[in-house]
Amino acid sequence: MDFQITEEQELLLESLREVMARSGSEDYMKECYAEHRYPQELVDALNEAGFSMLGVPEEHGGTPVDTLTLMLVAEEICRLGGPHFVFGQALSIADMLEFGSPKQQAECMGEITAGRVGFVLGFTEPQAGSDSSAIATTFTRRDGKVYLNGHKTFMSNAQRARYMLCLARNSEPDTEANKKNAFTMWWVPMAAKGITVEPLSKIGWHMMDTCEVYLDEVELDESDLVGVEGNGFMQLMINFEVERLLMASSLLGMAECAFEDAARYANQRIQFGKPIGAFQLTQEKITYSKLRIENMRNLIHKTAWKIDNGQSVQIDSALAKLYCAQEANKVIDDAMQIMGGIGYTTDCRISRLWLDARVQRIGGGTDEVMIHIAGRSILKQYQD
Amino acid sequence: MDFQITEEQELLLESLREVMARSGSEDYMKECYAEHRYPQELVDALNEAGFSMLGVPEEHGGTPVDTLTLMLVAEEICRLGGPHFVFGQALSIADMLEFGSPKQQAECMGEITAGRVGFVLGFTEPQAGSDSSAIATTFTRRDGKVYLNGHKTFMSNAQRARYMLCLARNSEPDTEANKKNAFTMWWVPMAAKGITVEPLSKIGWHMMDTCEVYLDEVELDESDLVGVEGNGFMQLMINFEVERLLMASSLLGMAECAFEDAARYANQRIQFGKPIGAFQLTQEKITYSKLRIENMRNLIHKTAWKIDNGQSVQIDSALAKLYCAQEANKVIDDAMQIMGGIGYTTDCRISRLWLDARVQRIGGGTDEVMIHIAGRSILKQYQD
Amino acid sequence: MDFQITEEQELLLESLREVMARSGSEDYMKECYAEHRYPQELVDALNEAGFSMLGVPEEHGGTPVDTLTLMLVAEEICRLGGPHFVFGQALSIADMLEFGSPKQQAECMGEITAGRVGFVLGFTEPQAGSDSSAIATTFTRRDGKVYLNGHKTFMSNAQRARYMLCLARNSEPDTEANKKNAFTMWWVPMAAKGITVEPLSKIGWHMMDTCEVYLDEVELDESDLVGVEGNGFMQLMINFEVERLLMASSLLGMAECAFEDAARYANQRIQFGKPIGAFQLTQEKITYSKLRIENMRNLIHKTAWKIDNGQSVQIDSALAKLYCAQEANKVIDDAMQIMGGIGYTTDCRISRLWLDARVQRIGGGTDEVMIHIAGRSILKQYQD
Amino acid sequence: MDFQITEEQELLLESLREVMARSGSEDYMKECYAEHRYPQELVDALNEAGFSMLGVPEEHGGTPVDTLTLMLVAEEICRLGGPHFVFGQALSIADMLEFGSPKQQAECMGEITAGRVGFVLGFTEPQAGSDSSAIATTFTRRDGKVYLNGHKTFMSNAQRARYMLCLARNSEPDTEANKKNAFTMWWVPMAAKGITVEPLSKIGWHMMDTCEVYLDEVELDESDLVGVEGNGFMQLMINFEVERLLMASSLLGMAECAFEDAARYANQRIQFGKPIGAFQLTQEKITYSKLRIENMRNLIHKTAWKIDNGQSVQIDSALAKLYCAQEANKVIDDAMQIMGGIGYTTDCRISRLWLDARVQRIGGGTDEVMIHIAGRSILKQYQD
Repeated sequence: MDFQITEEQELLLESLREVMARSGSEDYMKECYAEHRYPQELVDALNEAGFSMLGVPEEHGGTPVDTLTLMLVAEEICRLGGPHFVFGQALSIADMLEFGSPKQQAECMGEITAGRVGFVLGFTEPQAGSDSSAIATTFTRRDGKVYLNGHKTFMSNAQRARYMLCLARNSEPDTEANKKNAFTMWWVPMAAKGITVEPLSKIGWHMMDTCEVYLDEVELDESDLVGVEGNGFMQLMINFEVERLLMASSLLGMAECAFEDAARYANQRIQFGKPIGAFQLTQEKITYSKLRIENMRNLIHKTAWKIDNGQSVQIDSALAKLYCAQEANKVIDDAMQIMGGIGYTTDCRISRLWLDARVQRIGGGTDEVMIHIAGRSILKQYQD
Repeated sequence: MDFQITEEQELLLESLREVMARSGSEDYMKECYAEHRYPQELVDALNEAGFSMLGVPEEHGGTPVDTLTLMLVAEEICRLGGPHFVFGQALSIADMLEFGSPKQQAECMGEITAGRVGFVLGFTEPQAGSDSSAIATTFTRRDGKVYLNGHKTFMSNAQRARYMLCLARNSEPDTEANKKNAFTMWWVPMAAKGITVEPLSKIGWHMMDTCEVYLDEVELDESDLVGVEGNGFMQLMINFEVERLLMASSLLGMAECAFEDAARYANQRIQFGKPIGAFQLTQEKITYSKLRIENMRNLIHKTAWKIDNGQSVQIDSALAKLYCAQEANKVIDDAMQIMGGIGYTTDCRISRLWLDARVQRIGGGTDEVMIHIAGRSILKQYQD
Repeated sequence: MDFQITEEQELLLESLREVMARSGSEDYMKECYAEHRYPQELVDALNEAGFSMLGVPEEHGGTPVDTLTLMLVAEEICRLGGPHFVFGQALSIADMLEFGSPKQQAECMGEITAGRVGFVLGFTEPQAGSDSSAIATTFTRRDGKVYLNGHKTFMSNAQRARYMLCLARNSEPDTEANKKNAFTMWWVPMAAKGITVEPLSKIGWHMMDTCEVYLDEVELDESDLVGVEGNGFMQLMINFEVERLLMASSLLGMAECAFEDAARYANQRIQFGKPIGAFQLTQEKITYSKLRIENMRNLIHKTAWKIDNGQSVQIDSALAKLYCAQEANKVIDDAMQIMGGIGYTTDCRISRLWLDARVQRIGGGTDEVMIHIAGRSILKQYQD
Repeated sequence: MDFQITEEQELLLESLREVMARSGSEDYMKECYAEHRYPQELVDALNEAGFSMLGVPEEHGGTPVDTLTLMLVAEEICRLGGPHFVFGQALSIADMLEFGSPKQQAECMGEITAGRVGFVLGFTEPQAGSDSSAIATTFTRRDGKVYLNGHKTFMSNAQRARYMLCLARNSEPDTEANKKNAFTMWWVPMAAKGITVEPLSKIGWHMMDTCEVYLDEVELDESDLVGVEGNGFMQLMINFEVERLLMASSLLGMAECAFEDAARYANQRIQFGKPIGAFQLTQEKITYSKLRIENMRNLIHKTAWKIDNGQSVQIDSALAKLYCAQEANKVIDDAMQIMGGIGYTTDCRISRLWLDARVQRIGGGTDEVMIHIAGRSILKQYQD
């Protein structure tokens, strides 16, 4: 076994730290968050330094790296206080490289290289949260055109994105047993007629918008179909496991960010004549937080290694997502408790991490869905 | 034993529900919260209906009720989505009735009857959080006047209050062993020269301000002394136990508010063809949340009953504060999880409760301080 | 409200403490446990002092008391280190008084007054644990006689009991929708031909036997039917809620027993120059254990009060059973941790409590079944 | 990174599984446990297959392997239901090879190759548990001889061992600041005059004895001194970290053993018409148990790798011991819950694992001591 990261990875992280120091200072983050502003300058700086194209094949202008490296970068950005969504474009690109037409690919890549969002995913609907089979947005063919109608929600960055990758069901009645075949992906310009975007008012994630999107007779061409008709759901799922791991990595980074701040504070803050780190109740929080962080890191690294070695990670990625989402929240919550009242003010970035981490137990598959996925698959392994 | 509330209490709660329905609707709360606005209309309505003077002796124009009744009212306001701080003025009044001069009493009561805050407590300082003995604000006598200098923080409603009850230490060097005798209470007009108020930016409690207050040569008269010189700390502590219980009651109410919303939602929200309440992972959250709520309520009722029967509640009030603060947060967090993404938006009041409940594990004595107080006192009972 | 127990209850507990001091010393308990011996002397002493007939109507020679009093006695026996099963005969008697024939009643009461077990309940089967509808033991009528065939398990005190109250299904095929009507209760002499009793080897509860019982063509008369044919399940359930509460009360007593020992030890045990109770990690355990005990007690008292006032306690009794079973185990486990290595030896009664408490999360309805029962019923209350 | 075990390690585990299948069957284990009998046949078989000398330098007749390999073997023995103490002799040998005289080394090795215990460690005393500085056993020089007096406790295998490695303090008054220098190690034949061994009665670990040992004027020669006078404590600590990791590995194995049995059972056991694994409350236990097992394994592997690469593992080994002790107990406890009543009987090996795992949160450094060690050391890393 070997738990060492490579020298290349270390150098990459070093250069990342430089970008973050220059363009992602805490003051900058705080300002963006307070003003509910997209951290465009940071995105541009990461773009310029090549991070957006990490994991993209060379023939498409990218820098191929393994999954583990992607995870290390995602973790480090968040460990330094950056928001998770400024990294991970490789996954969007991967989706389009695998299923998109050349035109769709070009549009997606063009957006990303311009510092924008490749596309926004039109997936969740008010009645289709954990149960994606309940998606009700339809596509209807009429006079050589395709018309989308429906209502998507919880769409991240929908106000900024120029394209949506939209999952819709055939408006014809389902005739087959397997309803999931009914879903098809469409490439939709957000400027199209019939699209209305309404931002949701959230309690966190203030650097990006999250929206409801209404589609009313949105007209598309057949060439806007992405991949194979009826394969929408399966196409979507292909990157789910890496996405979950990426989410886990950013949660790890957030937990580390909060933990390190709190540990430093526990050494400095004097009460009753000694640093609060001298009290067992603080040591307890520090010890368990460290354990949680070690466990998160190990789960992520091992899962990434498995992916890089062609092993199945259906269980591993669900476990990593579940554990990191729950335990990052605990680490950050304990960090806030160590900080006392200061941790509840926006002066202290732990408060931002605390707000942001919470929704990650819901988005990208809830805790409960992860248990459902992992639990059943694990049990299958003991069916002798 | 008897676990029934009286008919009078039931009638009082009924009238409270009417006030809340009229003047504390969820739309109103949401608006105040979004605009970071003090719910003056609700405070006025509660005032008018007599709730501010509940627990105040008749000879001072109040309606005497027992501690249990105060707790029931505090719980019910929060159960209906109201903020905790619109109730509990009786405690401020009690402090002043016990120690204040007639002039101070009149000023405090005048404020409250006018729908304002009786006074703001000048207690916590940057270096004196859990360790109140580290309070560094001083009073100095010079030329027949008294001068306050120092820096208070985490002062609730400091921007609105016209008076501060300020704890300060004698600027003369401590000559005695017991440093706590060094503290004296002063009645300070917030409009006095030398007082600067700076609001803190918090992530919750958006209906009231929380401030830092700087005192720079604030000039007082000897008549502004409250109670007995050197007794400031002990005077302060007299109502601590009831205040902790009041805080516990409001946390119980907040937990119930979130729980009831989530339970209703679990019955209505359909996923995978059935209400999510049909899934064991939801039933589990519902069951444990209900248990937590029952436990909170029992702890509070029993402690209030003990107070009303003249029994010591040093341990009970610390246990109630600790339990209610931690478990209300869990109940509300589970409620948010049941709501899914909606619970993370400001459309859903659970998000507000989630933000507000967190700081109650820090303010009014942290979880850790409660363990310290309770743990040692409990152990003393087994020293045979 | 009133949280005071009555003077009569206090006197009763006082007399109980005297019986326990005389006939239930820790040395005696330890010896019975080590030798896997039934504590007959203690049972006899309790009998003699009238505790077996507590809760039995006067006309049947008993002393009627309310449910709360029964719970107080059950708790106190266990708080003093006694095993739970030496009390609670009133429930067995109540079953028989409600459904039994005069002969069956006489036999049951005769056993109890003689210091034996009224009857052993033949309920659980290898394939019917949580799912009692899977009970497969049958009764068949042939030539004016009734024949029982089947396999019961986890039967407490089956080796000592002279009678079994046996639940069996009609061997005729179910013709109706509701399978539960298929169950009928029978009064079976354990000495009957065709009955084989095989003790299970458990890791705790060493003062009583727990057995598998095989019924092979056990011949009964029609007069051995208990209550109404087809009503067996409903007859059984009538006392379930009180039984759960009784179980909760004994768990509370066990938790208190362990907690008090551990608290005393934490005051006496010196490490690093001070009592281990001076360390925050000990204070934390003490504080949370005390909270758990307070919560258990409140849940039990309130539920008992509800029963005594004719209120439904379907939810309350499930919550009390669930909470007490889980939290008593935690309290006892923490007590063991405070004791260190000594707590793992049989010299220390905490080890016995630790062994015994565990199975109470399984017997009498598992934690999971309690969640199932409570969760669904609670949700129904929010179906508006 | 690389998470793959080597082919050599896989082959070694394969051969271990063969030995276990032949000489460590579940029937055999159950019998030894029920009869409180040392599993001599298994120890002999492992000896014969060379496992006792794994990790011992070649020049001493052993097979050198890295730390990771030792951990894999320890885990696998326990995963297959074997007791932890049949493996790990390499650590005893390492101690003696580092500090022992040739005669002492020969005696230790002779015992191990003969299938006995190399030595029993005379460390803990009634007043010196977590606080080893309180050790009161003394050595006194008189007439060219050395005399030991004192009282050791919780000595594993003291009835079987022929030698004790005994830590004692100089009977001369401490003159120096650092009391730990006062401790010296002695090599004591258990057959020596003045030694009395009294077994403790435990609730688990029934395959080995645990004893109190009284030393009354036990006469030794100067040549029985082990290592350097005054260095006893430091000599003892050298292998503490590997020992903790070994303990963690056996706990991991125990957790896996219980988990695998429970997972298989969850697939087979039918209630309410389906396998209990189909219920979310079971899936939840399975998912979290798997997560715990993955985390344990990762912590152990990484710590072992660090040791093998010369890195400090003071924090890592404490974290691994803490986590594995606590979480193995949770995994086993959940496994018991899944098994229902059967899990509480000795027919099911989960009951044995449940009994045995508990004491590992106390022995080898309690949970609380691990928090103390890790917490302070972690905080030191954030002292900038």
